[in-house]
Amino acid sequence: MKIGVLGATGPAGQAVAVQLAAIGETVLVGSRALERAEHTVGELLERWPGRRLDLLPGDNETAAEADVVVVATPWEGVLSTVSALEEKLAAKTVVSMANALTRWGGEMVPLLPPTGSVTAAVARVLPRSKVVGAFHHLPAGPWSDLDHPLDADVLVCSDHRDAARQVVDLVDRLPGLRGVDVGGLASALAIEALTPALLEVNRRYKTHAAIRLTGLP
Amino acid sequence: MKIGVLGATGPAGQAVAVQLAAIGETVLVGSRALERAEHTVGELLERWPGRRLDLLPGDNETAAEADVVVVATPWEGVLSTVSALEEKLAAKTVVSMANALTRWGGEMVPLLPPTGSVTAAVARVLPRSKVVGAFHHLPAGPWSDLDHPLDADVLVCSDHRDAARQVVDLVDRLPGLRGVDVGGLASALAIEALTPALLEVNRRYKTHAAIRLTGLP
Repeated sequence: MKIGVLGATGPAGQAVAVQLAAIGETVLVGSRALERAEHTVGELLERWPGRRLDLLPGDNETAAEADVVVVATPWEGVLSTVSALEEKLAAKTVVSMANALTRWGGEMVPLLPPTGSVTAAVARVLPRSKVVGAFHHLPAGPWSDLDHPLDADVLVCSDHRDAARQVVDLVDRLPGLRGVDVGGLASALAIEALTPALLEVNRRYKTHAAIRLTGLP
Repeated sequence: MKIGVLGATGPAGQAVAVQLAAIGETVLVGSRALERAEHTVGELLERWPGRRLDLLPGDNETAAEADVVVVATPWEGVLSTVSALEEKLAAKTVVSMANALTRWGGEMVPLLPPTGSVTAAVARVLPRSKVVGAFHHLPAGPWSDLDHPLDADVLVCSDHRDAARQVVDLVDRLPGLRGVDVGGLASALAIEALTPALLEVNRRYKTHAAIRLTGLP
């Protein structure tokens, strides 16, 4: 299986790409500009010389040819990125990880799109894809460190139950992480809005907080 | 210090009242009808005969005379309950724990009031009070069991920093719980919307899930 990452040159995209490569997946590292993808892959391979990382640079069109595609573009660019690739992404599992948020009056606050969440907006422009929300709460910097796994749950939601299970299983293979199925796309609003709240926790406690659910079997 | 609980006869109210009494607080158990408050206190004392629980039944007006007042009314009744007590609640710490949610198409989903959250709506009708959001994610049934503490964080938010710290300190004294300051009232949207998402987790995993943040000092 190949996994594509759109917008993989940003902090979130680099983290998800290197983590997926580290568990043996072939990762198509996508960017609007091929040269930036090549630069990012060069940097990642240089940072982790002892690892076998199957990271292949390409543009977003190339990355969209993978079997599973993660959208790591900042939220402002998510819709234009995926709508341009609607044909290629049809019938595939597409993972949305963006959070719409901003600093407002000194606080990090969620921005609610008319669909309630970025993930639901992605599902709206990709009606033929199996859109899944995941990876919203992981701090990109610490998560990019292969030597120090996070201690976190990844809340996964989708109206496509098979795709949700697929992503939960993929998350369960990532060191330090556990996938939790939080139901349908309607849960994406809460998941995405929680990210600025976690950033407020980080600011107050000078840390990188993440989430664990207790009480799960 | 006395703590009042408005709407203390429901499952959430009973749980918060008995837990606060169990750590030695004097709790004014409020209800619209005094007889229902008396009935609830009788039931709680009967359930926990070996404990010294300082539970005093009263109507909501009496409970509002406490130093700190928890609003445990179901969300539909929260605004009418607190607006009738605006005068008595002035200058006090008022804790909102309600979640606006419903079952829609088979899923538990958040209902967003125009203020973004119930807590912000309470703050709007109580401009002279120090309104704090807390206790949203605790499953009422398990939390009412004094013999088996939960394993959970309580996300606390308020635009009144002293009141937020007061509630965090209070939560830290409750067995199994830790208070986490999640910043201003803008965080209440995410906190409240997360409750139906947790109910979706409960349904899928047949459990009572709660939240822990990792990475805190």
